Amino acid sequence: MRQTNLLVTTLREAPAEAETRSHQLLLRAGYIRQVAAGVYTYLPLGRRVLRRIEQIVRQEMESAGAQEVLMPSMQPTELWRESERYEVYGKELMKLRDRHDREFVLGPTHEEVVTALMRGEISSYRRLPVTVYQIQTKFRDERRPRSGLLRGREFLMKDAYSFDTDWEGLDLAYKVMYSAYERIFDRCGLKYRAVQANAGAIGGKGQNHEFMALSEIGEDTIAVCSLCGYAANLEQAEVHRGDCCPQCGEGELDFHQGIEVGHVFKLGTVYSEKLGAGYLDRGGRTRPMVMGCYGIGISRLLAAVAEQHNDDQGLIWPQSLAPYMVHILLMSVKDTAQRELAEAMYARLTALGIDTLLDDRDERPGVKFKDAGLLGIPVVLVVGKLAAEQRIEYMDRRTGNKEVIDIGEALLRVSGLKSAPDTAFA
Amino acid sequence: MRQTNLLVTTLREAPAEAETRSHQLLLRAGYIRQVAAGVYTYLPLGRRVLRRIEQIVRQEMESAGAQEVLMPSMQPTELWRESERYEVYGKELMKLRDRHDREFVLGPTHEEVVTALMRGEISSYRRLPVTVYQIQTKFRDERRPRSGLLRGREFLMKDAYSFDTDWEGLDLAYKVMYSAYERIFDRCGLKYRAVQANAGAIGGKGQNHEFMALSEIGEDTIAVCSLCGYAANLEQAEVHRGDCCPQCGEGELDFHQGIEVGHVFKLGTVYSEKLGAGYLDRGGRTRPMVMGCYGIGISRLLAAVAEQHNDDQGLIWPQSLAPYMVHILLMSVKDTAQRELAEAMYARLTALGIDTLLDDRDERPGVKFKDAGLLGIPVVLVVGKLAAEQRIEYMDRRTGNKEVIDIGEALLRVSGLKSAPDTAFA
Repeated sequence: MRQTNLLVTTLREAPAEAETRSHQLLLRAGYIRQVAAGVYTYLPLGRRVLRRIEQIVRQEMESAGAQEVLMPSMQPTELWRESERYEVYGKELMKLRDRHDREFVLGPTHEEVVTALMRGEISSYRRLPVTVYQIQTKFRDERRPRSGLLRGREFLMKDAYSFDTDWEGLDLAYKVMYSAYERIFDRCGLKYRAVQANAGAIGGKGQNHEFMALSEIGEDTIAVCSLCGYAANLEQAEVHRGDCCPQCGEGELDFHQGIEVGHVFKLGTVYSEKLGAGYLDRGGRTRPMVMGCYGIGISRLLAAVAEQHNDDQGLIWPQSLAPYMVHILLMSVKDTAQRELAEAMYARLTALGIDTLLDDRDERPGVKFKDAGLLGIPVVLVVGKLAAEQRIEYMDRRTGNKEVIDIGEALLRVSGLKSAPDTAFA
Repeated sequence: MRQTNLLVTTLREAPAEAETRSHQLLLRAGYIRQVAAGVYTYLPLGRRVLRRIEQIVRQEMESAGAQEVLMPSMQPTELWRESERYEVYGKELMKLRDRHDREFVLGPTHEEVVTALMRGEISSYRRLPVTVYQIQTKFRDERRPRSGLLRGREFLMKDAYSFDTDWEGLDLAYKVMYSAYERIFDRCGLKYRAVQANAGAIGGKGQNHEFMALSEIGEDTIAVCSLCGYAANLEQAEVHRGDCCPQCGEGELDFHQGIEVGHVFKLGTVYSEKLGAGYLDRGGRTRPMVMGCYGIGISRLLAAVAEQHNDDQGLIWPQSLAPYMVHILLMSVKDTAQRELAEAMYARLTALGIDTLLDDRDERPGVKFKDAGLLGIPVVLVVGKLAAEQRIEYMDRRTGNKEVIDIGEALLRVSGLKSAPDTAFA
């Protein structure tokens, strides 16, 4: 993509309401724009990062045996009354009335819809287990939307639901999903901890874990044992600062702030009992399906990665999520040697399937370096005065290392940066 | 995918409210389920077809130079008052109030949001032209939702918007998008006509075309000249049955029923003037951006293709949209030779990257043939009594042709069926 064509406007300063680093940088670098409090548009760069996350999530969900579905945002209020969550959710539930004055919930989550679906689709133990997932827009009427994508009112989630005949089956489904979550967050370059947590409004007596991105601005505090690996959400664990680890009894507890980016949850039979989702077992008796639910905040994950990966200049994307792999900065569009070399590099990299952004704007070098710092593409190739010698400056955005090398060497170094195609169908 | 794991339940009969062929078959074959009137869940098979359409649309949009964005469903009512469409849309507009009693529109389209976006992003002619697109959920409170996905209240659309400095630029953007639409519908295997149409609630004085899927159940009537290629929506053209062609004056007019699946529209400056989206031209004067808008009903397209491609047995997907390319029917799971051959074929095809569904259920052959007819996967390989001789029956779902061939020949025939990976990032 040529930067003269790309819809991106960088801002010198972030709007005053942007308090967190990720929110400021995503606005300043032209990744997102606010439409209303907690409601955002993803500009092309932001959309590309979202798509990378979606691809990773889809690949890992398919590998874990989950099947993709798409459930609607409009959910009949009756389902929320059956589950007895209509009142519990309270004002956070967005509602609308259609022209016939029928009320709908705009789904913040899909336990009700998916349980009602399975009630109709599955009648026998022979059709279990099954796990479905979707990547879909969710709505939650937050009292105070804040921190940009970290706490929005309309946001993108991956939610998955497993259905088993018994708790042993659920234990296995849970482990498989837990491992998939580790791979997803690892691949996204996130520093995180999986911590024990308790049930919230979601209900259920089962075990559950939160995946917490480590960040000073996180609203949750987590306690981590230095010896045995115990980790728990402080809000829900019965530990205090200064305590020894409640698991091994010896280790000291470290405390970190975290942003919840994922949650895996053994629901058990709470929803299947309330909504009547039963199956016939081998003996011909009706039993409630045993459920698990598994969420990842896709748009929140984008912001959490941005919160962890930045410096004074701007964003620094991990290769796996970068909107482009290589950013070619053409120092002077009026210099023929420079222009020809930059264009040749751009054509070559694009032909190799390496997503490349070419800054071909008629701007001063200072502007281009500043914008490249903000955008955070992992490899920056500066085509300047050494172009006549077929040499360029190779900058690693993460380490800040700069080296003058010839273009053959540069091509060699970036040739491994080809994006993985979407293999969900392959 | 093994059919014993796939979440699919076929129905003997479609619910009584399903009147059109596509609606009946998509329900019976387990592609979709109704959640409320005009609101559907896509089961795994339906989601896979949607994803194929999305991939084709993304590829052609990127080839046409359009950049993907993602705008929100929640749109501030103020924008709709600025465009003066709040009243025009009337009851079809879904609305909700947040906890602070602020009203939002749930977007049926995004002219307002995208124009307000560009107003903020673009100030100079040097940043134009630009075209953006998104694939996103839309809401419209239809008075009578019907025909399944053909007229829903929550549906998936691709909408694109072009911004130019002048009408000549718009003419070019329009032509590029028109060609992209032809490629999209061709690749989806749709029989369609592009017809001249007039402006509706969308506003604007410019030229526009509707892309009409030919179908007896279509609600629009189109007139097509047998000589000069003139084609128009009867509702909006000044022709009547029996008239000569108004364009060439000689040809006879044929009349067809059509389902609108796409629309390209020269909006001009209607929205940019109302919402104040101007740019500075070379002379430093402020001018309104000249806009075009371009929609495709993604979920409606799925249904329109299903409406055109079916027979007495069920759906018949074009290769480009099929949820799986090959359907292996294992006649008897208890026969070792059959089971081993079916498993070997399945492993081989999957390793080749060919999306394959293996019917490994313990069901009678009649059930398997019936379900294969309903599901409509293009190639069906029947592994039965000739398995010991390494021979199978090769069925072409479209032509109905059946042939007994050896497995080497079968592999050769299906080896070209590998799905294209998603190249939007490649």
